[in-house]
Amino acid sequence: MSRFYFDHAAATPVREEVVAEMEPYFSKKFGNPSSLHNFGQEAKEALEKSRVLIGELLNANPKDIVFTSGGTESNNLALKGVAFANKEKGKHIIVSKIEHPCVMNSAKWLESQGFEVTYLDVDKYGVVNPSDVEKAIKKGTILVSVMHANNEIGTVEPIEEIGKICNDKDVIFHTDAVQTFGRIPIDVKNVDLLTACSHKVYGPKGVGLLYVKEGTKIEPLIHGGGHEKGLRSGTENVAGIAGFSKAAYLAYSEMNEEGERLTKMRDRIIKEVLEIEDSFLNGHPTKRLQNNAHFCFRYIEGEALALHLDDKGIEASTGSACSSKKLEPSYVLLALGLKREEAHGSLRLTLGRKNNDEQVDYLLKELPPIVKKLREMSPFTKGSSWE
Amino acid sequence: MSRFYFDHAAATPVREEVVAEMEPYFSKKFGNPSSLHNFGQEAKEALEKSRVLIGELLNANPKDIVFTSGGTESNNLALKGVAFANKEKGKHIIVSKIEHPCVMNSAKWLESQGFEVTYLDVDKYGVVNPSDVEKAIKKGTILVSVMHANNEIGTVEPIEEIGKICNDKDVIFHTDAVQTFGRIPIDVKNVDLLTACSHKVYGPKGVGLLYVKEGTKIEPLIHGGGHEKGLRSGTENVAGIAGFSKAAYLAYSEMNEEGERLTKMRDRIIKEVLEIEDSFLNGHPTKRLQNNAHFCFRYIEGEALALHLDDKGIEASTGSACSSKKLEPSYVLLALGLKREEAHGSLRLTLGRKNNDEQVDYLLKELPPIVKKLREMSPFTKGSSWE
Repeated sequence: MSRFYFDHAAATPVREEVVAEMEPYFSKKFGNPSSLHNFGQEAKEALEKSRVLIGELLNANPKDIVFTSGGTESNNLALKGVAFANKEKGKHIIVSKIEHPCVMNSAKWLESQGFEVTYLDVDKYGVVNPSDVEKAIKKGTILVSVMHANNEIGTVEPIEEIGKICNDKDVIFHTDAVQTFGRIPIDVKNVDLLTACSHKVYGPKGVGLLYVKEGTKIEPLIHGGGHEKGLRSGTENVAGIAGFSKAAYLAYSEMNEEGERLTKMRDRIIKEVLEIEDSFLNGHPTKRLQNNAHFCFRYIEGEALALHLDDKGIEASTGSACSSKKLEPSYVLLALGLKREEAHGSLRLTLGRKNNDEQVDYLLKELPPIVKKLREMSPFTKGSSWE
Repeated sequence: MSRFYFDHAAATPVREEVVAEMEPYFSKKFGNPSSLHNFGQEAKEALEKSRVLIGELLNANPKDIVFTSGGTESNNLALKGVAFANKEKGKHIIVSKIEHPCVMNSAKWLESQGFEVTYLDVDKYGVVNPSDVEKAIKKGTILVSVMHANNEIGTVEPIEEIGKICNDKDVIFHTDAVQTFGRIPIDVKNVDLLTACSHKVYGPKGVGLLYVKEGTKIEPLIHGGGHEKGLRSGTENVAGIAGFSKAAYLAYSEMNEEGERLTKMRDRIIKEVLEIEDSFLNGHPTKRLQNNAHFCFRYIEGEALALHLDDKGIEASTGSACSSKKLEPSYVLLALGLKREEAHGSLRLTLGRKNNDEQVDYLLKELPPIVKKLREMSPFTKGSSWE
């Protein structure tokens, strides 16, 4: 059976060009970039070339790119690093209610360390209102963290306006751009800290970055030999970083064309899936990731739906992979105002390079009968105690 | 010019078998192990297979293996994770004076957070005396961290005895085994936490592990989706972990044979290099890593020596790659009682799989004239103000 992958927000296959880029750094140019000899220096060269490449894509100074082990580490570094470095100035942090679990759980941990966190509401589309950010900023606010686009529902946040507000008020602004980097152009003009990660843009897992604007007060999360300007110690994952920068470069090169292609498929999916009775779209109807279509189907369980799709060779998820093992409904969906029962019936379809119209045909053919069948098996029906 | 690499303590080339093991997880089995669908589950399978494999090598329960981004992160997690989780019990930590910079700088950071750290002396060979550990333990001691073997001078520490003392006194014992994992058998019987890393055993960079014995009170350094038993969040580097476990397996398979081969070369190097006037060996004469030969040459600078060797195609270092950019003399060497001037004249040669007798012949032919030449150029001579 062919398997069609519709879960690109969870992970993407590494492109062949990227694997080829990584290869020399495994067994040939394998030196430690901190070593002063020849092998070390050729590794260091690859590292710095990657930094320049990514700096250009972000319109950032390459010196401000700190490579990490991934988005989760970058987000932890952003929140905890700013918190610990600025606690003399204040102990108040603002995040939205729909941030990624790594931002949420870093914020919660900081609360246990004596910091105060404001969790900002979002509207029914998942949009953070910039004026809410402005109102929440007070004396002692040191950091605002609002993601660029949500990983579950795909809503794109107004980070330029939020960044400008923070900038004006002299508060550090961090954005988790894991889902947008390589998909939507980003200019770090009003951003102090930005998280991106490799395995969402057809690069290898285990690599990410934190952009840290010069002058931003932050301390390391991982101490050691003083790598990455002292902000992230540990021997650099040279092959992974070379792969990441190559993948990012390719994603940027194809951004417009691929974005348009995905948007067409996404809109077709949204239009046709919404024809299924008692279904609705989550996230903003237009301000959303080009590759994200996220639905709820009333009266059924998302897990069962995903498993039945899997049986048909359609790989999708109920929401974020990072929360997939939890039986709790998605806190992102609850923040939109959904009822718990509604939130349980979610399906996330995230498109990527290999998806095409034929795969979408197949998906749109297979999905409605599965929903129908599950509803027939469901103890809940329209008008029942479910509602 | 052929280049002979004598810096295996800094980094090792990834073995071809390891690259082959990683390959399927880049572009084919690329799923996110947290995804419940087919692609996710095959990635998860690889992850768990790696965990079992490494658990067997360490005589550990596979469930106690936490994969990380490398040795530096593991050591940070061990120190900070135990410190934050046990601060109700006490705030005193013991480390040796020759720990890796990532342990030292984690300890120093913890001091800035209100913890008390005892830095244990070592003898002239770099050996920690277990009875010093016993004496240093007091009410409120929560953690002892002593490395298995030192990364610069190669001395192997008596971790079994130290572990037993900690065990008896109900203090958590951590050992940084980055340099010994895959070289010297390790049994985690008396060890609560153990750090190992991939790129020192012919695996890829950017992967490591922390063994965390069940019941050890520790909290995560990187919060998020709750991966790795909640101790290390972030999408797992599946390809890297598969490569790491393969590399570890191969290293263990060949441990005795390769260890003997390296020991012979090491002993020959030590014997012949010490024939150079005003040179001496650092580290323990016998209780040392099979692949480590570390010298000081009086009256010259180690950096100059390493650069001249590099010109001849011999890749070696003055000490740890992680400290190579600092102009300060090695704190490890100072802890042995060396004078600052002596410590500046150090050379570390660390052997590996591709080294052979012919390469050692070449090294031993080229080294003495370089030392001689540098001494002729040196403002310092025997009996000068240098001493």
